[in-house]
Amino acid sequence: MLSSGGRGRLARRDFLGGLTLGAGGLVAQAAEPLAARMPDSMRTLGGADLPYGQPSPHEQSVQRIASNVSGFAAWRTPLQEQRGIITPSGLHFAVHHNGLPDIAPRQHELMVHGMVRKPLRFDLERLLRYPMVSRIHFLECAGNSAANALSPTALDQTLGEIAGEVSCSEWTGVPLSYLLHEAGLKEGAQWVVAEGADGGSHSRSLPLTPLLRDAMVALYQNGERLRPSQGYPMRLFMPGWEGNTQVKWLHRLEVTDAPAHTKDESGLYTQVLADGRIERFALHMDVKSVITHPSGQQTLPQPQGFFEIGGLAWSGHGRIARVDVSVDGGQHWAPAQLQGPVHDRAFTRFTLPWRWNGRKAVLMSRATDEQGRVQPTRSEWKRRYALHSFNHYNAIQAWRVGSDGVVENVYA
Amino acid sequence: MLSSGGRGRLARRDFLGGLTLGAGGLVAQAAEPLAARMPDSMRTLGGADLPYGQPSPHEQSVQRIASNVSGFAAWRTPLQEQRGIITPSGLHFAVHHNGLPDIAPRQHELMVHGMVRKPLRFDLERLLRYPMVSRIHFLECAGNSAANALSPTALDQTLGEIAGEVSCSEWTGVPLSYLLHEAGLKEGAQWVVAEGADGGSHSRSLPLTPLLRDAMVALYQNGERLRPSQGYPMRLFMPGWEGNTQVKWLHRLEVTDAPAHTKDESGLYTQVLADGRIERFALHMDVKSVITHPSGQQTLPQPQGFFEIGGLAWSGHGRIARVDVSVDGGQHWAPAQLQGPVHDRAFTRFTLPWRWNGRKAVLMSRATDEQGRVQPTRSEWKRRYALHSFNHYNAIQAWRVGSDGVVENVYA
Repeated sequence: MLSSGGRGRLARRDFLGGLTLGAGGLVAQAAEPLAARMPDSMRTLGGADLPYGQPSPHEQSVQRIASNVSGFAAWRTPLQEQRGIITPSGLHFAVHHNGLPDIAPRQHELMVHGMVRKPLRFDLERLLRYPMVSRIHFLECAGNSAANALSPTALDQTLGEIAGEVSCSEWTGVPLSYLLHEAGLKEGAQWVVAEGADGGSHSRSLPLTPLLRDAMVALYQNGERLRPSQGYPMRLFMPGWEGNTQVKWLHRLEVTDAPAHTKDESGLYTQVLADGRIERFALHMDVKSVITHPSGQQTLPQPQGFFEIGGLAWSGHGRIARVDVSVDGGQHWAPAQLQGPVHDRAFTRFTLPWRWNGRKAVLMSRATDEQGRVQPTRSEWKRRYALHSFNHYNAIQAWRVGSDGVVENVYA
Repeated sequence: MLSSGGRGRLARRDFLGGLTLGAGGLVAQAAEPLAARMPDSMRTLGGADLPYGQPSPHEQSVQRIASNVSGFAAWRTPLQEQRGIITPSGLHFAVHHNGLPDIAPRQHELMVHGMVRKPLRFDLERLLRYPMVSRIHFLECAGNSAANALSPTALDQTLGEIAGEVSCSEWTGVPLSYLLHEAGLKEGAQWVVAEGADGGSHSRSLPLTPLLRDAMVALYQNGERLRPSQGYPMRLFMPGWEGNTQVKWLHRLEVTDAPAHTKDESGLYTQVLADGRIERFALHMDVKSVITHPSGQQTLPQPQGFFEIGGLAWSGHGRIARVDVSVDGGQHWAPAQLQGPVHDRAFTRFTLPWRWNGRKAVLMSRATDEQGRVQPTRSEWKRRYALHSFNHYNAIQAWRVGSDGVVENVYA
């Protein structure tokens, strides 16, 4: 069992009580000479801007990490480069089962049929007239962190490579309940089969009741129309559920009385437990956290002194209630500060000031959500699932900091 | 004086009490034939994604609106295309006084000097080690909506052309107080002169006390490093203050006991009142709102029936408390629904369902912030300022809907 974190068990020698930056070993250089060097950029008129802005050319290395480029492809977010809770749309993770379809928005229609009184179809123009809601939510692939679940030894990778199949955006769309109620649900309706217009027609069966409460047909992400990666021109969005249920390029919703057992749900996203039972429709992504800085393959820029430990926490079951941090591999825990806003089923930032003494350290974060769910250790997680299961991996992530300042993924 | 809005004065015939979409005149087409046409995209494997995602090629018309391309240039956000509260970074407005400098991050330094005990300089690597905070805030140019202030007749323009010098992002950076306290403020320190590394060295004097409370040296916007448009690699950010005080390409902060009266603050951003007095250091952007849909140059897509009126409200003084909407040119007002999250000094979404009767209508929104500040009418605003003043225009925006469904900017 995990020991409960708390101030009583805080190793005070490791953490700073408050911010005493100058005294804490992080000292800016004195301004000598005082007269500002005048940089070249102040001597000339600058250039022109772009109609659609782009990142600085000096930041071109900040890209999504591709594990395959076409077909079944995963593009991971370099989470170690992100600050704040919003993932820029250009860096939002994507997993495509059948490549990236190009859909002309005027030809696209969404059909609602099955156990409804009046089957309906919606073109984009019509859908854009409906009232919409906007909410900030994370989105995570069921298979995120699979390598940590499967690999017998911890792989030396960056955070984005290990756990970059999760991102957070402001999603805007039409509540699904408006469309289903307009079609009129028939008695006995209990499931919705959602199908995408991609090659291979990715499809999932989803229980109706939670969809009526929380799902939307999303048309916008971070203030602009969905990117092709995210299902342009429309996708299903259901906060907190595994990524593959958020069917992209959505073109069909069939209301049924039972799940369809599509290939996608009976194969890849069904998981075997340690006792041999099969876990089906495990839709919610569980409570999880990662330290983003310092993290894998980073090097602490000087041998010792002040550092901020910072990271992201999220839960498919609600708000994050607390995050505890350890710098000694889980022997002692200290509560991190949660940085607002703390939204329901959204990335939440946590931070803790840390004075590194220059010796080996093992950093860990352990999130607790408002329902009291706590991240397991890796061995606890492994005891629950069969040997080759890898979905819904949410165990505590550990980073070892070497005496040379190099940070590496470890199992601890 | 404006009449106070409220349910008691709501013209109920104009607004829908609730969402009765099917009955409200907005009916999706029946799905005939029921068998889904299988779009071409389902018959082939899709293409490859991009390492840094981009908008759909079908959305290329959604761009910033340039009034000048180089030198003193304004790039406005097409607010009528935005949903939610986050402006995508590629569409965030920018006003450049001296073009867009290209700054190599490794050569850039921030100097803190003047009335401090220990003048300091910070390179980027050092600054990135400091603890940071993230907050969602709007940013607005002092001159936003200037044409509505200056033009004797209302110009037939889109919302973005009229009022697109305002946007909202998640900003992340190092609290300025950390840097100033490390340098050590001397007795009598009361102002900070912030200077950018652009050609012409844009600079502003700002009062110290509010900066210590709320300002940051921003390094990230919407989760990634600042775009060049927004001051890469660093800018000053102070929530609620006029845009030109958020000095981009920040390279110098000089602590003083009095304002420097730089050219930028004694010229363009000083404003003449109607009685001849000069308004200096009017830093806060006031309470304001705009209806984003329907808005200028849009056409309601069918002659009558259900529409959502939606828009954005913000205030440099705090949270938005309420927004009232009128469809009859201000004779009757109804309270709109505020859609959470409602953050301090951030865009806030408001919506109201509307049943258009097919006749001429004049749509207006009027925001009130938590301090009780209310948007003035245009004539109230004009009475306060001299004839050629145009900064800090926050009067109620009116849109006329013609019987042909065409929406046009009007003074009302």
